[in-house]
Amino acid sequence: MVGVQAEAADIAAGKTLAVRCSACHGPAGIAVTPDAPNLAGQNEAYLSAQLTAFHTGARQNEMMSMMAKPLTDAQIADLAAYYHSLPAK
Amino acid sequence: MVGVQAEAADIAAGKTLAVRCSACHGPAGIAVTPDAPNLAGQNEAYLSAQLTAFHTGARQNEMMSMMAKPLTDAQIADLAAYYHSLPAK
Repeated sequence: MVGVQAEAADIAAGKTLAVRCSACHGPAGIAVTPDAPNLAGQNEAYLSAQLTAFHTGARQNEMMSMMAKPLTDAQIADLAAYYHSLPAK
Repeated sequence: MVGVQAEAADIAAGKTLAVRCSACHGPAGIAVTPDAPNLAGQNEAYLSAQLTAFHTGARQNEMMSMMAKPLTDAQIADLAAYYHSLPAK
């Protein structure tokens, strides 16, 4: 099922996945564009729910819908755990 | 027009408005529930765009749609400026 956290998230895998996100969300989760959110230190459940919403289309954003479309539940969990693990600015 | 920042936002007014948000987003913008986002230090343009999306219905969330419905553009700008001004954890 979408959004269910089957196994413990893999922060290292999330870090590798996050390279594709850094153009907007920055190399350390502090957004480089003012209309993108800072993700560093954000709540893991919230991040996971938003990525799942972009993946399913429940939440719409041109860029994020495209980025989240191919992600698996495990990849969403890894990304959420990775960004949650980063120090907020 | 919705989302247009007519005058400089009023952080003090935003702080007063934010009392209604603290049940989920915490007294200092650090969420008290895991499925709500931390708002402290978040990008002002992003916060304003999300509140506007909840206000117009472009973004859906039961609680946030209800909270954002009555907000004016000026109140949205004040809330965004207030939360942006808070230190991220």
